[in-house]
Amino acid sequence: MDAPFPGSVFLGMSVDGFIARLDGTLSFLDGADAPDGGGAPDRGGDAPTPDDGEGGDFGFGEFVSSVDALVMGRSTYEFIAPFAEWPYQGRPVHVLSTTLPADADGRITVHRSLEDAVAALAGCRRVYVDGGRTVHAFLRAGLIADLTLSRVPVLIGTGLTPFGELAADIPLEHVGTRSFAGGMVQSTYRVRR
Amino acid sequence: MDAPFPGSVFLGMSVDGFIARLDGTLSFLDGADAPDGGGAPDRGGDAPTPDDGEGGDFGFGEFVSSVDALVMGRSTYEFIAPFAEWPYQGRPVHVLSTTLPADADGRITVHRSLEDAVAALAGCRRVYVDGGRTVHAFLRAGLIADLTLSRVPVLIGTGLTPFGELAADIPLEHVGTRSFAGGMVQSTYRVRR
Repeated sequence: MDAPFPGSVFLGMSVDGFIARLDGTLSFLDGADAPDGGGAPDRGGDAPTPDDGEGGDFGFGEFVSSVDALVMGRSTYEFIAPFAEWPYQGRPVHVLSTTLPADADGRITVHRSLEDAVAALAGCRRVYVDGGRTVHAFLRAGLIADLTLSRVPVLIGTGLTPFGELAADIPLEHVGTRSFAGGMVQSTYRVRR
Repeated sequence: MDAPFPGSVFLGMSVDGFIARLDGTLSFLDGADAPDGGGAPDRGGDAPTPDDGEGGDFGFGEFVSSVDALVMGRSTYEFIAPFAEWPYQGRPVHVLSTTLPADADGRITVHRSLEDAVAALAGCRRVYVDGGRTVHAFLRAGLIADLTLSRVPVLIGTGLTPFGELAADIPLEHVGTRSFAGGMVQSTYRVRR
């Protein structure tokens, strides 16, 4: 039997579980200098780099250095695309989209289906799965091995979420939790097989 | 100016933020022996008492001893009502309902509106606000002072939630987080005024 697909999630979210507002903006994450895109886009500059206020980046750089590749949806790609510098340390970026031209951006590989993306990522030891709809699709398909969820101390009421209907409960194992001076609480879980 | 209403929330939930399944059952909380009603109703016995597996109850008893009264919705009341013993240490229980007869149960006071309940609770130093819809209504109305959220390590996909649309963001202050051997992570927040 093949090993389970090694999808890894690293998301900043509000305490009520939203990773972005309904319009895609992330300004609410600023309160605690959140990972994974804290701050409004500053197009042309570097992609938003997390700053935990203690000289670190909430473990984001270490996480990226642990993956072989990234897979994300078109919306997340289009949020990141305008930045001159990506924070992905040269890792290959795979994008799920039925509409983006295959040659849209030399930095990415476009896939028309989740199955195609998974096939292209065969052999990876760890894959960073990003974006609300993509994380949900991979969770539903049993393709997530671990999740690091960083909650910033705010309730925003509505927004985009990586969570949603599942075919069955997904039991988790709590690996660890740490909190930061700004009030962020970061928990890591492994999916139980 | 009056002091803000001292509503306190103490909820067990899945990592994806659900306090019960859509049918109201709580069995998913069993995995980590959750507070606030772990386990299916065992009617006629004691109400479900939390057990953190370390000789404690996740702080539930200490929390209840800190409140002057409880307020909950009809659904939560009807879940608790069949149990011979309530875990509320004799605190008065106020129930929001437009349908329950005023004399339905000598152990409770029925209120027809949130405003009536709040008026009846004037002078309380701390009020335990319970149940998904009631917590959401009190959050929307700015009547929650603090929240203790205990997340059990499972994703369930759909269910009842205390979260939902708000008139504005509710910024929180992280008071503290602790984790338990079974994998529950319990964070306490104060609402910033």
